[in-house]
Amino acid sequence: MATATLSIDLTALTDNWRRLNAMCGALAGAVVKADAYGLGLKQVADALATAGARVFFVAAAEEGAALRKILGPGPVINVFSGHMAGDTDLIGQAQLTPMLNSIDQMSRHMETLPGHGFGIQLDTGMNRLGMEAAEWQALRDLALAQKPALIMSHLACADEPDAPMNARQLQTFREMTAGVTAPRSLAATGGTLLGPDYHFDMVRPGIGVYGGLPFVDAKPVVTLDVPVIQIRDVAPGETVGYGNTWTARSPSRIATISAGYADGIIRAMGPRAALYTESSAVPVVGRISMDLIGVDVTGLAEEPESLQLLGRHQSVDTLAEFAGTIGYEILTSLGARYRRVYC
Amino acid sequence: MATATLSIDLTALTDNWRRLNAMCGALAGAVVKADAYGLGLKQVADALATAGARVFFVAAAEEGAALRKILGPGPVINVFSGHMAGDTDLIGQAQLTPMLNSIDQMSRHMETLPGHGFGIQLDTGMNRLGMEAAEWQALRDLALAQKPALIMSHLACADEPDAPMNARQLQTFREMTAGVTAPRSLAATGGTLLGPDYHFDMVRPGIGVYGGLPFVDAKPVVTLDVPVIQIRDVAPGETVGYGNTWTARSPSRIATISAGYADGIIRAMGPRAALYTESSAVPVVGRISMDLIGVDVTGLAEEPESLQLLGRHQSVDTLAEFAGTIGYEILTSLGARYRRVYC
Repeated sequence: MATATLSIDLTALTDNWRRLNAMCGALAGAVVKADAYGLGLKQVADALATAGARVFFVAAAEEGAALRKILGPGPVINVFSGHMAGDTDLIGQAQLTPMLNSIDQMSRHMETLPGHGFGIQLDTGMNRLGMEAAEWQALRDLALAQKPALIMSHLACADEPDAPMNARQLQTFREMTAGVTAPRSLAATGGTLLGPDYHFDMVRPGIGVYGGLPFVDAKPVVTLDVPVIQIRDVAPGETVGYGNTWTARSPSRIATISAGYADGIIRAMGPRAALYTESSAVPVVGRISMDLIGVDVTGLAEEPESLQLLGRHQSVDTLAEFAGTIGYEILTSLGARYRRVYC
Repeated sequence: MATATLSIDLTALTDNWRRLNAMCGALAGAVVKADAYGLGLKQVADALATAGARVFFVAAAEEGAALRKILGPGPVINVFSGHMAGDTDLIGQAQLTPMLNSIDQMSRHMETLPGHGFGIQLDTGMNRLGMEAAEWQALRDLALAQKPALIMSHLACADEPDAPMNARQLQTFREMTAGVTAPRSLAATGGTLLGPDYHFDMVRPGIGVYGGLPFVDAKPVVTLDVPVIQIRDVAPGETVGYGNTWTARSPSRIATISAGYADGIIRAMGPRAALYTESSAVPVVGRISMDLIGVDVTGLAEEPESLQLLGRHQSVDTLAEFAGTIGYEILTSLGARYRRVYC
């Protein structure tokens, strides 16, 4: 079997959510956008709902509609991109709660779905999603009269606790929502860890639930085991892989394993990444191909049948460092060809 | 609608295959591994079969089984990873042709599926897949007596026509297959373009079919249009996106578009990438987020409803350059959230 096995530990995942939830005075939401950070919307959402989550966040209305089918009626499904042109039917039929980002979205929502619940997203300095101060000023009384389900914003630098931007955004959020009685939310995982000042009425953990930084105490959720297709002897001077980028300096044993960048093993991590047996690290050699990776197993006493890329020896964040990115991208890149096992 | 639209031009795709096919004396195969390089196995395989392709290549037996369901009986489906432990039932039931890579695989195949067709993959210097010269020497008479359907190898540097490795591998392949009457194959897209010496009895184009380099005359196959969620004014000194990595130097208009690295827009390309209107380029500003990207649209006369990331202004290879990778990875990373339109 040439298919690698991606094991997803739903117990660790729900435990991560529970511990982030326990840091706050009120029930935490759960962010399950991007197919639950690449780990499978159905399995993850079911597990979180069973663990007690009642409010979910997705990026787009299409994701919300898929989530509604999974969860059935009851749980709240908030949509970060708000109410875009063409979303009305989905929002109405799937009972989604759009986080309205602009006057345009507010008008669209009021005109097409009067009386249908909504939230408000405010921009507190990230300049990405949400109403600007002037827009909000113009709209505030009208919006509040309609009793928004949530008023939220998002932090740009929550992964860096010392960034002055955090306190600035907190202050702006307080000013923009002064006197508001609707529930408020500012923090995702990073903000949750910044402490109670940032918690307001709901936190929205995402990456921490999936075992990634900045939640340093997160339990790892994913394990990725890649089968070895074959092992060969390579003599000094011989090269391995595309472009001849690796040359053997001494007699070597090279394993070819069955996964590559088409499976989300980002090509840029190249030979900085390692694979693992139970007890040893073995380095990637040569370029990562679409479906194959060369690994130098010269030092191993036994021929491995598979090697581990993600697990207790190497986290998503370590792998991200090799690829010059963040753990989030390692997770959302996890490919469709893996055999997925939930435990 | 917050979902971006990925348009896949099957006419261009089949035309690319036809033109690569026309370069050779015999019918070309078609490589459709990794979900047809991210473009959709079903649609692509159906189109190629209609265009006349009769021999398909996949990476793993699981992909082969999925392809057999699509194509039905008849077309040949070759599996690059060969006959691995656990593959026997799939190979037998789906009538796949494994490219055997080692003595181990040959033994497994002969023992578990006697009489079932197979090919042989030889290593001619890439040291990735295929039998080494010594293995082949030991096995050759036995293997040839069983009438392999194909004897193949793969070039490590075919994208660099001047690399001496190409001629070395060609020479090695000729030596290893001297006197063999079974059909032989050495070239993928790059090798096809190296000329008739490399064509043997079958070429196996992949990336060129999908519109990527090194097939410089390939017709572009993919277009990616990303909707704008909202547009805001940003004053000098304000920042955009995570980590405050971009600061406005003059009054600016920033569009937030609805796609991100969870959709395969590789985070590393960051602000080197541009988006396009019909006539203008507009730069990415700040970090690419999971589901969102900031774009500086200050220079546009009209507010765009969507912006194009891939298309006639920007190819998969240009985008790859921004991300420090190759067009192949841009294609195989294309995300699952896109609305896919085939034309």
